[in-house]
Amino acid sequence: MDQRLSLITLGVGDLAASRRFYEACLGWTPAAVLSDVVFYQLPGLALALHPRQALAEDAGLSPGGGGFAGFSLALNLPSPAEVDALADAVRAAGVAILKPPGKTDWGGYHFYLPDPDGFAWEIAFNSACTIHPDGGTVFNFG
Amino acid sequence: MDQRLSLITLGVGDLAASRRFYEACLGWTPAAVLSDVVFYQLPGLALALHPRQALAEDAGLSPGGGGFAGFSLALNLPSPAEVDALADAVRAAGVAILKPPGKTDWGGYHFYLPDPDGFAWEIAFNSACTIHPDGGTVFNFG
Repeated sequence: MDQRLSLITLGVGDLAASRRFYEACLGWTPAAVLSDVVFYQLPGLALALHPRQALAEDAGLSPGGGGFAGFSLALNLPSPAEVDALADAVRAAGVAILKPPGKTDWGGYHFYLPDPDGFAWEIAFNSACTIHPDGGTVFNFG
Repeated sequence: MDQRLSLITLGVGDLAASRRFYEACLGWTPAAVLSDVVFYQLPGLALALHPRQALAEDAGLSPGGGGFAGFSLALNLPSPAEVDALADAVRAAGVAILKPPGKTDWGGYHFYLPDPDGFAWEIAFNSACTIHPDGGTVFNFG
């Protein structure tokens, strides 16, 4: 299978609440708003929001489940100061952060915030990352 | 928040089993193999495997949970024939597909396969997608 990722789809409980989070709180702009799916184009892939039950059915899975979703998404920023600034902006928007900004055991700096379904977004500074002008991130493990 | 995604981390039950799936079965090559995390560089972002409990702890979340994880990952291919060919290869590798290849209600063609933790990968043909030479995918909604 090609070592690529085209789309990540989050199965959400309330599409309107999720749109408010990604658009009003985080400042994203949708590429398409359809009746039961919203697409955000990111550099090289898209992120979609789709009702949880519809996503489970589409995948041939039972929709039941709960607790920790078992994954995280990360946005890497060029400096710890930018991580702190985003934490302040997120708090000012009324989002209760899961884990406050702090140093990590791998030498970086990060915090976590939850989206409306509790999906964990990590906002991180990692000196092993190069962020390209188009927004793509390449990890350099030396 | 920048409309970007740097990293997706899957919280896995058995790191060795997940590596076999992504490397031996799907043909991916790791960029880094550390004691409890494996990184795969994709175009513009990375995918990491990390023990589920460690990931939950890192995010400040309780590790409990189960059932449908509430998200899917998708790889888009340039034609339905390539979707079928990958389904055949996946079956030949002994992976039981979640949903067999078929037409979708949005005019595409897809199937779903599970990774070792049941995370759902959708393999899709979507005529609204452009796959760039670097592997990046852009969705065209007209």
